[in-house]
Amino acid sequence: MNRVINDPDQVVEDMLRGILVAHPELSQSEGNPRVISKTRPSEQGHVGIVTGGGSGHEPAFLGYVGPGLVDAVAVGEIFSSPTAKSFFDAFRAADHGAGIACLYGNYAGDNMNVKLAMKMAASKDLQVRTVVANDDVASAPKSDIAKRRGVAGEIFMWKVGGAAAAHGYDLDGVIRVAQKAVDQCRSIGIGLTPCTIAAVGKPNFQIPDGKMELGIGHHGEPGIEVIDIESAAAMAERMLAPILADRDFSVDDSVVVLVSGLGATPVMELYVFYAEVESLLKARGLKIHRCYVGNYFTSLEMMGVTLTLLGLDAELKKLIDHPCRSIGMTQAE
Amino acid sequence: MNRVINDPDQVVEDMLRGILVAHPELSQSEGNPRVISKTRPSEQGHVGIVTGGGSGHEPAFLGYVGPGLVDAVAVGEIFSSPTAKSFFDAFRAADHGAGIACLYGNYAGDNMNVKLAMKMAASKDLQVRTVVANDDVASAPKSDIAKRRGVAGEIFMWKVGGAAAAHGYDLDGVIRVAQKAVDQCRSIGIGLTPCTIAAVGKPNFQIPDGKMELGIGHHGEPGIEVIDIESAAAMAERMLAPILADRDFSVDDSVVVLVSGLGATPVMELYVFYAEVESLLKARGLKIHRCYVGNYFTSLEMMGVTLTLLGLDAELKKLIDHPCRSIGMTQAE
Repeated sequence: MNRVINDPDQVVEDMLRGILVAHPELSQSEGNPRVISKTRPSEQGHVGIVTGGGSGHEPAFLGYVGPGLVDAVAVGEIFSSPTAKSFFDAFRAADHGAGIACLYGNYAGDNMNVKLAMKMAASKDLQVRTVVANDDVASAPKSDIAKRRGVAGEIFMWKVGGAAAAHGYDLDGVIRVAQKAVDQCRSIGIGLTPCTIAAVGKPNFQIPDGKMELGIGHHGEPGIEVIDIESAAAMAERMLAPILADRDFSVDDSVVVLVSGLGATPVMELYVFYAEVESLLKARGLKIHRCYVGNYFTSLEMMGVTLTLLGLDAELKKLIDHPCRSIGMTQAE
Repeated sequence: MNRVINDPDQVVEDMLRGILVAHPELSQSEGNPRVISKTRPSEQGHVGIVTGGGSGHEPAFLGYVGPGLVDAVAVGEIFSSPTAKSFFDAFRAADHGAGIACLYGNYAGDNMNVKLAMKMAASKDLQVRTVVANDDVASAPKSDIAKRRGVAGEIFMWKVGGAAAAHGYDLDGVIRVAQKAVDQCRSIGIGLTPCTIAAVGKPNFQIPDGKMELGIGHHGEPGIEVIDIESAAAMAERMLAPILADRDFSVDDSVVVLVSGLGATPVMELYVFYAEVESLLKARGLKIHRCYVGNYFTSLEMMGVTLTLLGLDAELKKLIDHPCRSIGMTQAE
């Protein structure tokens, strides 16, 4: 195992040390090193945006803390949920007197710990509401949509929620637009190689050489099928089909496309893939308002790519276009 | 070989197709698809900044085309030089009546093709001057510094040269500061795994499992030694030592640090590594003015990391802090 780490059991602490010295605009919460928030907090009276999740997906989650995005993030071990205490401390770090929108992905550990954290918050009269992303069409059938995992589409929920908070939306308003972003968003991933948690020392799942796994999760959760590697054009068709079958994007004003590498896919190949996606969407008459192509939500050194579509109305368009600044995403005025 | 491509021989064309549809701020030159420039050109009377190099290093080189950075880039095949014609066409695309600063890395193919392109330019009365980056301390001894390769330090030369051009420096001035950036810059890389050019189908070099290669080049050029993988802290010491032995950075106002992944190194590990570098620099009394940690200059899906230090004076500090916007680097006002 060839990696750039010290003690495999301290990799999250070591990463946080690097993040904090590299980014003075981010701070560790006093009393809880697993909570990262903006050094210069949002204005008093603005809704606080919180998220959290396992490490190993960088720049998610902590890379989306910044102006116009997330206020505070609870940091978990690699591929595992932050503690309830960390979610609660992230709520407190993001509290500016207007309530907290906790926007996170649908995983058992996160669901449990957010629920516990909300109980702690209630006992302190801290108002917290949640939106749970479930954008991964491959993780459960449409009839069981609440069981679907949240994947890269979470970024849109943070983008939209963070922009709404910056615009002064109240908690109801922030929750409404974040939920709309989830409702109008669909994702699917394809894995080409497995990845290895250093403390484990061997891959936690396998993809045979020459094969790819359609619908694989961000932690190697089983996908829909393991098939022979095909061309980028064929991959784009194969990934777009279940997304477009699941939701009618032709009803929207336009769409936002997010192509994220899973860690080890060369940036060159993400653009090769995007060219195919763009041409398929255009052929179907869908208008692309904006696209993001890069490593936005990864899984350590996994090779592969995720595709996310978000359908826009006028309100979401305004929020998606709002400026933001963070490690993972910077958009100018 | 698990990759997201179509025809392995068309991967550069396919990537460019994706880049162009994703980034309307970038344009392909009329008559030469291997030249990418800003859709909205720099002001007339500003020096044009040109670079070029092989593909597979994304976001380098075309990802640094944008305001405050590079005007036009000549795009080569994977790991091979752009043609002389492409360099010449990039000169023309970047010409705003104040001459061209061609800022590129020290590789045989690039040297030859830039030289030929300059002859073509001279016949058209187009004034072109060059700065050749040779920041890689591992590629030749100090006594033979002109033989050293240019690696990630090229980014600083573009940043500084692009900012100077935006500030209205004349060609002499742009060349002077770009050369200063090279002179005050040192880099070294470490490779943990090889990478594969898809059209070749097998790695063009080998690094045994459990080993790492200190001083490896961006195309797998042999380094100084192949040794057992060690901790991130030990890697940081091992990489910093030859950089600091080669140039006295204590004479500078402060330093800029660039830690770039080579493609497949998780972002998490880049920060683990940066934490060690920061603490070693601090222990030596060096002040870090700014740092960049991410995938800035890659080698397909190679695992590994490069470390670059730039010594600042007041002028370079102003130019490094100048805003810029591009795929590879965005800095706000």
